[in-house]
Amino acid sequence: MATLDDIARELGVSKGTVSKALNGAKDVSQKTKQSVLETAVKLGYFRAPRNAPSQKLALFVINMEYKKPEDFGYDVISGFRITAEPAGFLVDVIPLTRQMQFDWHYDDFMIREGYCGGFLLGLSLSEPWLNEIADCKTPTILYDNYIRGNPRVTSIGIDNEEGIEMAVHYLQSLGHQKIGYLSSDLNSQVYRKRYDAFIKAMSTSGLVADDSVMGADFHVNICLTNHLPRLLKNECTAILCSHDVLAHSVMIHCLELGLRIPEDISIMGFDDIPLCRYTAPPLTTIRQKRTSLGKSAFSALINQLNHVPMGTLLLHAELIERASCGPVNRKD
Amino acid sequence: MATLDDIARELGVSKGTVSKALNGAKDVSQKTKQSVLETAVKLGYFRAPRNAPSQKLALFVINMEYKKPEDFGYDVISGFRITAEPAGFLVDVIPLTRQMQFDWHYDDFMIREGYCGGFLLGLSLSEPWLNEIADCKTPTILYDNYIRGNPRVTSIGIDNEEGIEMAVHYLQSLGHQKIGYLSSDLNSQVYRKRYDAFIKAMSTSGLVADDSVMGADFHVNICLTNHLPRLLKNECTAILCSHDVLAHSVMIHCLELGLRIPEDISIMGFDDIPLCRYTAPPLTTIRQKRTSLGKSAFSALINQLNHVPMGTLLLHAELIERASCGPVNRKD
Repeated sequence: MATLDDIARELGVSKGTVSKALNGAKDVSQKTKQSVLETAVKLGYFRAPRNAPSQKLALFVINMEYKKPEDFGYDVISGFRITAEPAGFLVDVIPLTRQMQFDWHYDDFMIREGYCGGFLLGLSLSEPWLNEIADCKTPTILYDNYIRGNPRVTSIGIDNEEGIEMAVHYLQSLGHQKIGYLSSDLNSQVYRKRYDAFIKAMSTSGLVADDSVMGADFHVNICLTNHLPRLLKNECTAILCSHDVLAHSVMIHCLELGLRIPEDISIMGFDDIPLCRYTAPPLTTIRQKRTSLGKSAFSALINQLNHVPMGTLLLHAELIERASCGPVNRKD
Repeated sequence: MATLDDIARELGVSKGTVSKALNGAKDVSQKTKQSVLETAVKLGYFRAPRNAPSQKLALFVINMEYKKPEDFGYDVISGFRITAEPAGFLVDVIPLTRQMQFDWHYDDFMIREGYCGGFLLGLSLSEPWLNEIADCKTPTILYDNYIRGNPRVTSIGIDNEEGIEMAVHYLQSLGHQKIGYLSSDLNSQVYRKRYDAFIKAMSTSGLVADDSVMGADFHVNICLTNHLPRLLKNECTAILCSHDVLAHSVMIHCLELGLRIPEDISIMGFDDIPLCRYTAPPLTTIRQKRTSLGKSAFSALINQLNHVPMGTLLLHAELIERASCGPVNRKD
């Protein structure tokens, strides 16, 4: 990791000037401050805040609810904090806005604010910082975004292939052969992974996965109106959904059509959001262990700070059996 | 994690009997000892050795040299020990034999010997314990074997796709378009991953990867006599090899044929074994960070022991530029 001396040498100025520039002293010109900051970023310098007992970590959240115990992000953040804070780190949870991303470069922000590492939750592919993180110098953990080739970045998430495989095997063990799949937007890396994993798992299970039993759209309503009727017409006896919210909507729609769950049709979700226990019937799903995700993120970050460059870290999936799936009801 | 009480309840015997059975007391019958042990394994019980200040971890090695600093396993084991031992664990390094695997079931061995976790290096697909580990109860880390679906097992290794992608991009940046690929046995999970990754990376780079430029065989000599001539005849200007030892043989063979390296042909390896610095010319390759692999294995094991079920952990690859690759020499 670069030091103040490295920055001073690179710019041909004194170490004192570098230090003052980084601390925003008034007797250093704006131009010098800017070039010191740029050089600090280029060389990969991180400053430990003065007189601070702890090192600071930034946990950014966007596109995700996290303030209440029933929100997906709540447990992830708790898992991160309950491992990071006893280890002597201060964790700032920062709601990330588009404006912030336009106002600041990621590395600049981290250095100026004295963060030695970042954990980012919920970034969509169109988020400006996601492009910057492909080349960032700050040790950084991404949840559910997979970036290759930057040794400072670890991608963490659940093993989606394992999860989908578990779901297909489970439904097959209940006698289902016509298994449908409904998905949200395939421009999302995660939904694409799950979609591809479904095709693979069906194929290795000797079952057919083609357009007659699969459908994807960004809008839940379009899934319900354009794809679900086709799956039902093609006599799917079970439908696996890319995520629980979609599964819940499919469940309600099927009930409205007079179908019994699971007697007439089994519905299965993915994620195990807290809602799943309270749907009618309670939703069978694949669990992402949210607290473990947060703990893993801190573990990966500590390894990054110790120069152990983890690239990808996938948690095991877990099948959660509730009441929305049952044995196939063969029509005689 | 199961307790002595759980085992006693399951078998309908006293806790004292269970404890005595596990400690090999003479006044407990062999039959009882056996059923206590089996129940302990079934319930996932691990015993902390009596009066032992530390918990014990077993590091098994097979099919891999590890005793000298120039051996591949040496740094992996060091990386594991330098993180595990300061954390209060005793690490036993155990050469694993076929006989041991026939004599013992993996979980039985771990419980009887008082190990709370295992790290296994170098298991081939035909190793008897690999099948047992698919359902084992002991927290276990596998290097370069990828097992899905058992929450107690973490697979660690380098990101082979990232490494092969780096290699192809690097050779392409030197002007190479006809890039050959030679591989060891494709029944190995790792060599298969690298082989498939080569086809993918070539395709996304707009280059052709087919039988005219690719070859694989378990025997290095067959690679040299059956595949290398085809690659040379088809005017490959660079050859990427699945691992350094093969690359080294290819290099010697090319030199014997009167080809200059890298002027006439670029040769590139994978792994960065210590030998690579001393070949003539020194071998350009993709590094597996061996010490980091060992450290990651311990990190994954600690997470397993804390019930954070990591499934897959991939380290970043790193391009190591030496002298065996150069700009393409276009014939006029």
